[in-house]
Amino acid sequence: MSWLETELREQPEALQRLFDSQAEAARGAARLFHRRDIRYLLIASRGSSSNVARYAQYLLGRAHRVPVMFATPSLYTIYGQPPRLDGGLVIGISQSGASPDVVAVLTEARDQGRPTLALTNDVESPLARAAEAVLPLEAGREQAVAATKTYVNSLGAVALLFAEAGKDSTARAELARMPDALASQIERSLHDPPPLEEYRDAVGMTVVARGVNYGTGFEIALKIRELSGLVTEAYSPADLMHGPIAAVQPGWPVVVVAPSGPARPSVEEIVPPLRARGARLVAVSDVRAVLRRARTRLLLEPGVPEWLSPLTAVVPGQVTAMRLAALRGLDLDHPTGLRKVTLTR
Amino acid sequence: MSWLETELREQPEALQRLFDSQAEAARGAARLFHRRDIRYLLIASRGSSSNVARYAQYLLGRAHRVPVMFATPSLYTIYGQPPRLDGGLVIGISQSGASPDVVAVLTEARDQGRPTLALTNDVESPLARAAEAVLPLEAGREQAVAATKTYVNSLGAVALLFAEAGKDSTARAELARMPDALASQIERSLHDPPPLEEYRDAVGMTVVARGVNYGTGFEIALKIRELSGLVTEAYSPADLMHGPIAAVQPGWPVVVVAPSGPARPSVEEIVPPLRARGARLVAVSDVRAVLRRARTRLLLEPGVPEWLSPLTAVVPGQVTAMRLAALRGLDLDHPTGLRKVTLTR
Repeated sequence: MSWLETELREQPEALQRLFDSQAEAARGAARLFHRRDIRYLLIASRGSSSNVARYAQYLLGRAHRVPVMFATPSLYTIYGQPPRLDGGLVIGISQSGASPDVVAVLTEARDQGRPTLALTNDVESPLARAAEAVLPLEAGREQAVAATKTYVNSLGAVALLFAEAGKDSTARAELARMPDALASQIERSLHDPPPLEEYRDAVGMTVVARGVNYGTGFEIALKIRELSGLVTEAYSPADLMHGPIAAVQPGWPVVVVAPSGPARPSVEEIVPPLRARGARLVAVSDVRAVLRRARTRLLLEPGVPEWLSPLTAVVPGQVTAMRLAALRGLDLDHPTGLRKVTLTR
Repeated sequence: MSWLETELREQPEALQRLFDSQAEAARGAARLFHRRDIRYLLIASRGSSSNVARYAQYLLGRAHRVPVMFATPSLYTIYGQPPRLDGGLVIGISQSGASPDVVAVLTEARDQGRPTLALTNDVESPLARAAEAVLPLEAGREQAVAATKTYVNSLGAVALLFAEAGKDSTARAELARMPDALASQIERSLHDPPPLEEYRDAVGMTVVARGVNYGTGFEIALKIRELSGLVTEAYSPADLMHGPIAAVQPGWPVVVVAPSGPARPSVEEIVPPLRARGARLVAVSDVRAVLRRARTRLLLEPGVPEWLSPLTAVVPGQVTAMRLAALRGLDLDHPTGLRKVTLTR
């Protein structure tokens, strides 16, 4: 079995380990959110971790009612004009903790006396050393180049921060059920998968998602892209309508990520214009009405609260990416030209 | 002649009109930046205006040394959990001023007593009415669906805010030279264009850019995508290296936007890995060493300061998009399935 599939299957166990071992660390880190002068969160990240950041933008934004922004590393590393960060809580997310651009943002924030928090799988990494507080991801060693369990555990760490910062017992209980829900989702996605042969020779795909699952859309696109080499991209339905839909030609596959929840109707509004353009629709949903309108159906585990649905909704995307790569005869663990740790400025 | 080409040619005149008529309004608007409690800027936008927002993120971030973030409209319109905006100056950018999601963010900010500024081409629009201050774009009526002069005038409005907020006479003088530089750039790009026939049947393209031109990369990608229907996307070099480069197959066209300036070496670092993958390189640059390494050369007007280079660097992209659409036999003024004003929540 490939490392990729092994690690994909390990995700529930890795998530459980995070919850078992890091609840106390999360409570400590969550105290940073309660400093009186926090006006916004600023997150530095690259790659899959930027998709975790998109989840954090919605979840932590809703939890603390403060806006969440992403860092622009070049202002720190190229222009030498970092912003004043008064009012900011600065979070770095990186499984390796090694990318110089992410470390540069945390280092600057700490030099300015701002609170800093690292979410990383390597507690000895430069990122961990640069930050005031560290929430270890506890994913265990990840060998495949494409992130699976480090991604889900990063989402889990953000969800844990949300639950602990809010001291919310309902949220804690919902979170505690996620390793089981994830195991069921993996079982469901691996067994009884829909036929994907018709997409093997596609040039690319578009993934549409919104709200807490906006990052899920980007992560599914990235996973398909890294593993299968298809030109895969992600948009919110509103952004797609403001011009980019022009490239959706007849037969172009579009993955619509629409779990139950407040964002679902807004995502569904994109279906009629996509159908009018002749797109091949792939639905990722637990909602019968959404699945029925799609050509290809990727079923989600029902009963998962929307705020936690990114942890399960990414799984059919991971499995689809893996199966497309296998259909295309590619090496699952070493996509051409990619490395596990990418160092950028 | 198409409206698109007419409006593309009108850009220097429209930019001059903005500078002649709105310097005073920009000075007034710039005073908002000097309120003592401003800790960050928050921008709401869609489509081309989001690419202007990317320019503002670098330029206004550097000018005021405060971080600049983008709004997440669904927190306002779908989840009903807008963030507290203490410390924020909130800017809406929209040529039509009509999109409900952008208006919702400004309305909420004003209800919270925060300073708000609208950049719009319609001073009677809902966005203009929602904002405390308005900086009119003065682009004149734009008839083609794809934005050209409203895009460049939006950049010009941001640059004007930068120069006026900093009371920077060098910046003002550099800005005053831009209508002429833009006219020369349009002349250069329209006449003596490189052959583009080989890209007519491409499926898509990737555009790479960074720093102040990060938004230029997105706007060139959007313009090619809207007009020609090619699946065109934009990345920073660092983001491309963190996985998405996997989809760059032999022959895939990659447009590298690399004007003179601090960001150029970092953009050039992507050239060897792109060459190793067999990409067809298109360079947008005024630097001989960059142009020499490309298969297709889109020349930039020399002598433009980097902070203003987005106003000229977009032009070869606009012209390329127009020519690709013509080669593909498409209607330049009415790309299939798009409308001039898109209303999203």
